[in-house]
Amino acid sequence: MNETQVNAAAHPYPVYIGENLRHHTSDYLPKDYASILIVSDESVSNYYLSDVMAGLSQENVFSHTIPAGEQSKNINTFYQLHTKAIECGLDRKSLIIALGGGVVGDVTGFTAATYMRGIDFIQMPTTILAHDSSVGGKVAINHEHGKNMIGNFYAPAAVIYDVQTLYTLNAKEIRSGYAELLKEALLADKNLYEDLIAMDLNSLDSQKLIQHLTKGIEIKAGIVEVDEQEAGIRKHLNLGHTLGHALESLLGYGAWTHGELVAIGMLFALKISEDNYSAELPFEEIYTWLRNNGYPLQLPNIDPEMILAKMKNDKKTLNQKIQLVLLRGIGQPTLLEINDEQLLTYISDFQVEMNQRSKEG
Amino acid sequence: MNETQVNAAAHPYPVYIGENLRHHTSDYLPKDYASILIVSDESVSNYYLSDVMAGLSQENVFSHTIPAGEQSKNINTFYQLHTKAIECGLDRKSLIIALGGGVVGDVTGFTAATYMRGIDFIQMPTTILAHDSSVGGKVAINHEHGKNMIGNFYAPAAVIYDVQTLYTLNAKEIRSGYAELLKEALLADKNLYEDLIAMDLNSLDSQKLIQHLTKGIEIKAGIVEVDEQEAGIRKHLNLGHTLGHALESLLGYGAWTHGELVAIGMLFALKISEDNYSAELPFEEIYTWLRNNGYPLQLPNIDPEMILAKMKNDKKTLNQKIQLVLLRGIGQPTLLEINDEQLLTYISDFQVEMNQRSKEG
Repeated sequence: MNETQVNAAAHPYPVYIGENLRHHTSDYLPKDYASILIVSDESVSNYYLSDVMAGLSQENVFSHTIPAGEQSKNINTFYQLHTKAIECGLDRKSLIIALGGGVVGDVTGFTAATYMRGIDFIQMPTTILAHDSSVGGKVAINHEHGKNMIGNFYAPAAVIYDVQTLYTLNAKEIRSGYAELLKEALLADKNLYEDLIAMDLNSLDSQKLIQHLTKGIEIKAGIVEVDEQEAGIRKHLNLGHTLGHALESLLGYGAWTHGELVAIGMLFALKISEDNYSAELPFEEIYTWLRNNGYPLQLPNIDPEMILAKMKNDKKTLNQKIQLVLLRGIGQPTLLEINDEQLLTYISDFQVEMNQRSKEG
Repeated sequence: MNETQVNAAAHPYPVYIGENLRHHTSDYLPKDYASILIVSDESVSNYYLSDVMAGLSQENVFSHTIPAGEQSKNINTFYQLHTKAIECGLDRKSLIIALGGGVVGDVTGFTAATYMRGIDFIQMPTTILAHDSSVGGKVAINHEHGKNMIGNFYAPAAVIYDVQTLYTLNAKEIRSGYAELLKEALLADKNLYEDLIAMDLNSLDSQKLIQHLTKGIEIKAGIVEVDEQEAGIRKHLNLGHTLGHALESLLGYGAWTHGELVAIGMLFALKISEDNYSAELPFEEIYTWLRNNGYPLQLPNIDPEMILAKMKNDKKTLNQKIQLVLLRGIGQPTLLEINDEQLLTYISDFQVEMNQRSKEG
C-alpha cells in the first residue's frame, strides 16, 4: 500500500492507495466518530457497500444510495442528503464517507462541507477518474445553467483508495480515468508520460494502478498545495478541459465520458501549442495511443460558434476572455489568452482535421 | 465613524460603523469588482436600495429582492440567488452585497460562499440584531428539520454598518438587537453592561448606537478570532440561546423576535447559574430593565418535555447531552452539562416563576 500526504491549507490529509483497503476501513479513519453515514450510488453499492460496512467496527453506521450518474449532482439530491444526515442523528463529531466516483464524491463532499457548517468526510473513490476529484478539495453540485456552479473548497479528512474496486469498471470508464492521468503526466512528469504511452489499457493490473494513481495524485497534490483556490497554477489542471467541458455541456453528460472529451481537448491544446510555440510536441504519438486504446476521436459536428459560447460560459472565464492551458513541452504548461476570431478558426480547423483523420482510419 | 478589524482565519476584514455610509458605499469596498449584485429584502429595499445603488460608482451593479422574513432562508431562495448571479454574469472577481438583517445576510452570504466555490461578499446590516450575525462568518440556510443546518464558515470581505438605516426599525426589532448586545456585555464587559442597564431603548441616538454596536462587535470578534469553528469558547455566545432557539422553533419564527426569546433564555441561564454557583448575579436588575423596555416576559405555556426535546435537536448538542452556557459573574461565562431530569425541573420552575411575576406585574 502507498501512502501520500496532501498538505491542504485547512489541514493535511493522507491518501491511502492499495488492495483490499475497503475490508479494513476502520484502520484508515483518522479518529473515532460518533456516527458514520456512507453515501454511494446504485451501481457501486451493489458491489462494495457491504464490504465497507463490514470493514467498519463502529456502532452507528448508516448508508444512503443515490441514483448513478451526473444528474445526481443537483440541488435536490444535496438537500435529500442533508435530510438523511439529520434523520440519522449525525452531529458535528460525525463522519460522512463518499463511496463512489466523482459524482458521489462531489455531492457528498458538498453535503459534508455544509452540514452544520462542515463535518468530516472521507473519499473512497471507486473509479480511476475520481483520483483527480478526490484530491484537491473541490466539492460541488451543478446548477441547471452550469456545471459545478455551487460548491466549496473543502478538504477531506482522508482518501482511501482500494484499487480492487476498479476491476468492475468498463472500458469507457478506464479510458476516462486514464485521460486525466495522461494530462497530469503532460503537465509535470515525463517518466509517467512514457510509462503511459507504452501501455495497453487492456492489460491493467493492481501494481500498475497503484503506481499510476499514486503518481497522478502526487502531481495533482503538488499543484493544489501551491494554489488551492485556483488563483494561479491550479489553472494548469484545466489542460484539455476548456474544450472538453464545452463539448460535455453541448453533448449532454453521459454519452461520452468526461475523460474521453478531455482527451480530445488535449489534442486541441497540443495543436494550438504547436502553432504558437513551434514546440516539438508528441501530438502524433498521443493521437495514436488514444486511437489504439479505443478513444472516440471523431469530433462531434457542432457549430464552432456554439462551442465558443459554451467556453465563455465556463466559470473559469473572466471578463468573457478565454485563456487556454497550452504546453511549451512536456512538463511545461502555460496560459495563453486567445481572441474569439482566432479561436473560431482553431476550432473549425481542428474539426476538419479530426474528421479527416477518422475517415482515413 | 468607527473602524474595527476582525482577524478571521481566512483573512482579516474591516467593520465600518457610522452615519451615512450607504451613500458612499464605493469608498468602503476593499477592491475593484467587475460586477456587483446587491441582495435585499422587500422591506429594506424600499428604504435603502436606491441609496446604496447611487453610492456605488461601478458600472455593472445589479440588485435582487427576496421576501422579508425567516422563511426566505430556505433552499429555494438559495438556488434562485445562484440563478440570479449566473444571469447577471457574475464571475470569480465579482462581489455580492447583503443589504438587510440577519436573514438576508445569512442566505446571501451562503450564496456567495458557494457561488463558483466562493466569491467576495460584503455585509451591510440594517438591523441592530445583525451586528451579531454580520461578524463571525457564519452563513446558512434552514432545513425544514432545523435552523441553520446547511451553511459554511465564510468571512465577509467587509462589513459596512450605516446606523441611519436603523431608524426605520420598530420597537420589537430594537429590543431584539439589544438583547444580543446585553448578552455580549454579560459575557465580557461590565462597563457596557452598566451602560445598557442604565439606558431607555426609546432614547436611542446615532452616537449611542455607534458606541454600543462597536463594543458588541469587538466582543464578538474577540471570541470568534480565538475559536472560529466553535470548538471551545465560541460556545459562550450561545448564552440564552439554548432555551431561546427551542422556544423560537416551537413558537414558529416571527411571533416573537429572536432577541426577545434570547432575553428569556438569559434569565433562565441566570437562574440556573445562581442555583449552581451561588453567584451574585443581577437577575432582578435585568428582569426589571427588560420589563421596563417592553420585553414580553411571560413564558409561553409549553410542555417542558417538548422544550427539552427541541433543545436536544440543536446542532450544538453532542451525543444528546445538553450543555448550558452559565455565568459565574459578569464577564465569567462557563459551560455546564445538565441531565434531563434536572433540566425539566428547571424549565417548569422557571415557567411558574415567570408567570407568577407577570401576574404580579
